[in-house]
Amino acid sequence: MSCVITNIGQLVTFDPADPDRPIRTDAALVIDEGLVPWVGDAANAPAADTRIDADGAAVIPGFVDSHSHLVFAGDRVAEFEARMTGRPYTAGGIRTTVAATRAASDDDLRARLAHLVAQSRAQGTTTLEIKSGYGLSLADEERALRLAREVTDETTFLGAHVVPAEFAHDRGAYVDLVCGDMLAACAPHARWVDVFIDSGAFTVDEARRILTAGRDAGLGLRVHAGQLEADGGVALAVELDAASVDHCTHLTDADIAALAESARGGAGTVATLLPLVEFSTKQPYLDARRLLDAGVAIAIASDCNPGSNYSSSVPLAVALAVRELGMTPLEALAAATRGGARALRRTDVGHLGVGARGDAVILDAPDYRYLAYRPGVPLVRTVVVGGVDIAHLRQAR
Amino acid sequence: MSCVITNIGQLVTFDPADPDRPIRTDAALVIDEGLVPWVGDAANAPAADTRIDADGAAVIPGFVDSHSHLVFAGDRVAEFEARMTGRPYTAGGIRTTVAATRAASDDDLRARLAHLVAQSRAQGTTTLEIKSGYGLSLADEERALRLAREVTDETTFLGAHVVPAEFAHDRGAYVDLVCGDMLAACAPHARWVDVFIDSGAFTVDEARRILTAGRDAGLGLRVHAGQLEADGGVALAVELDAASVDHCTHLTDADIAALAESARGGAGTVATLLPLVEFSTKQPYLDARRLLDAGVAIAIASDCNPGSNYSSSVPLAVALAVRELGMTPLEALAAATRGGARALRRTDVGHLGVGARGDAVILDAPDYRYLAYRPGVPLVRTVVVGGVDIAHLRQAR
Repeated sequence: MSCVITNIGQLVTFDPADPDRPIRTDAALVIDEGLVPWVGDAANAPAADTRIDADGAAVIPGFVDSHSHLVFAGDRVAEFEARMTGRPYTAGGIRTTVAATRAASDDDLRARLAHLVAQSRAQGTTTLEIKSGYGLSLADEERALRLAREVTDETTFLGAHVVPAEFAHDRGAYVDLVCGDMLAACAPHARWVDVFIDSGAFTVDEARRILTAGRDAGLGLRVHAGQLEADGGVALAVELDAASVDHCTHLTDADIAALAESARGGAGTVATLLPLVEFSTKQPYLDARRLLDAGVAIAIASDCNPGSNYSSSVPLAVALAVRELGMTPLEALAAATRGGARALRRTDVGHLGVGARGDAVILDAPDYRYLAYRPGVPLVRTVVVGGVDIAHLRQAR
Repeated sequence: MSCVITNIGQLVTFDPADPDRPIRTDAALVIDEGLVPWVGDAANAPAADTRIDADGAAVIPGFVDSHSHLVFAGDRVAEFEARMTGRPYTAGGIRTTVAATRAASDDDLRARLAHLVAQSRAQGTTTLEIKSGYGLSLADEERALRLAREVTDETTFLGAHVVPAEFAHDRGAYVDLVCGDMLAACAPHARWVDVFIDSGAFTVDEARRILTAGRDAGLGLRVHAGQLEADGGVALAVELDAASVDHCTHLTDADIAALAESARGGAGTVATLLPLVEFSTKQPYLDARRLLDAGVAIAIASDCNPGSNYSSSVPLAVALAVRELGMTPLEALAAATRGGARALRRTDVGHLGVGARGDAVILDAPDYRYLAYRPGVPLVRTVVVGGVDIAHLRQAR
């Protein structure tokens, strides 16, 4: 079943085979068997079984959201309000969500996850990474990954999110568990292993153990680092050839040099920026120009989670990248598409060149820059996944 | 035809008859002949012809967006990009939009306006003020107001937006025109008159002439002031008992005292804050706590326009009010509902007490605070206007 998208006002391809021309006008796009066999001038478009009329709108690759935490129960809206209004709040942070998640049934978690995934889709995300990390026991981490695997191939084992309360006095035993039996139970459901490096979570040395064990179990590597301070996690991520190091709000000059050197070597380690977290924690934003000017490969992702940021809006992340991080609209869109793909070591998504998956978003706008020009306005008109129009998911419950 | 909304997780009424209880739980809401005849405990809800199941979600009054400029043609996305990325840009600002608007047909302007209004509705705005101001000739201002009046009763004559190019060397003659024949032609289509007080637009003395003439023609008064500096416009607005003074990013202590004194006297002059403008112009945000602590009456509105802010997202304005202006989520929601109503001197909208219009929004969230907790996520599930579910407008083209 083939499909041609016609009457496109502006087509953003980010075609790696045509790097000097990321944007085409007067173009059409064909999707067949879920892939893009042809992109070119509309006047030369081949026939197809079905046709989608873009009505003069901009068409972009679907967003690749390479960082989310969507398997959980409960919310932390009271904690959010206290943080934003400067009131003291003494609840348990991540551990509050761990308790709610452990207590929830499979069906409850599955329904909540389906709702959150549908919301992401409706906002233009067509490739979505989902982490565990609110189970923190062998059975609960395995369950989270099993549920996540039902909705995406991009699953990440994050047993090393924080040390759970029951191991507070023996964190070494928890690291042993994560590297041992928990990893063994989770690896069959995961593509990646991740560690949260932070003064409240895991040290660089603990992360090295966990990531090395994960690699030995066949998983790719991701790291949370630099959210609140330059913590040495970036150097570890580059040393171990992690696909991505996420947050990167606080970086030393040496961190930036290491990331840039890594990017020159091919896939390397991508710096994944999460500006929605700075929005929702009232932290200062980083200056992405420091990274771009040095040649660092950048992705933008949502980090949707119930604590530090509960927004799954990649469009707002793009707008914040322009308003707050110093990126151009084109750099921000590239980071949210092909950047996210690189952070997942994928070459089949994040662009609309020949051979890509047919994952495209038709905007309610004539120009991709409207994503930054009209922040907050729902500009995703139609989401096409593998050539199938799933716009009805906009009404998802 | 009556309708009852049941299974409401949280009902924000802002009922003026019950000021100590802005939020109810276990409540139901009845709408009949477009108005609210009953609100109370769900267990006591009367029967109605139809029923809307809120499925445990939060229900809030529809947003009252008291400041927008939606009658125009063209866009200024290139100007936006230049501003955000620090590049020089020498195009004509507002005058660019004036030229495009004058050149557009009625049907083109009407179609664009309908699209923008549908987008506002889909984001929860149920009362919408619309200004002229991109015509700047008698015929073009009259046309803009005539078109705006087709979609809202809250129309505002803003002939005094800027001095058009053809009057650049005789601004006095333009002020004469605005106060004379242009006002006479426009007043039948308008409820309000407004002046943009700014070093690039009109002086306080010019504004006084125009507002006084508008008042004599039977119009209510609104003022743009304090966008880029404390310019004396607030004092004028209070002196003339304008319903609202909008922007207020830069205020003196005397301005705040005058606004607070005005608010104590009844309706008074509302300070309408437009944080989306600061977002899209990279200007610093004001501290709303200074105003709230002094007792100033506050509204939040979008100021959707093609130049300084093209977002119509009141939900994002609410999130910015919390992130950037120092407001609590409840204060921000109140400002975007009953605050907007007060800025339009309306008592029938902005709340869901008995006698209010039946304009309500069912959120895709259990708690109104999600508007700030989940910025950018389209959380407006169902929009009810006068008891009629218009959710299908979400898909508006």
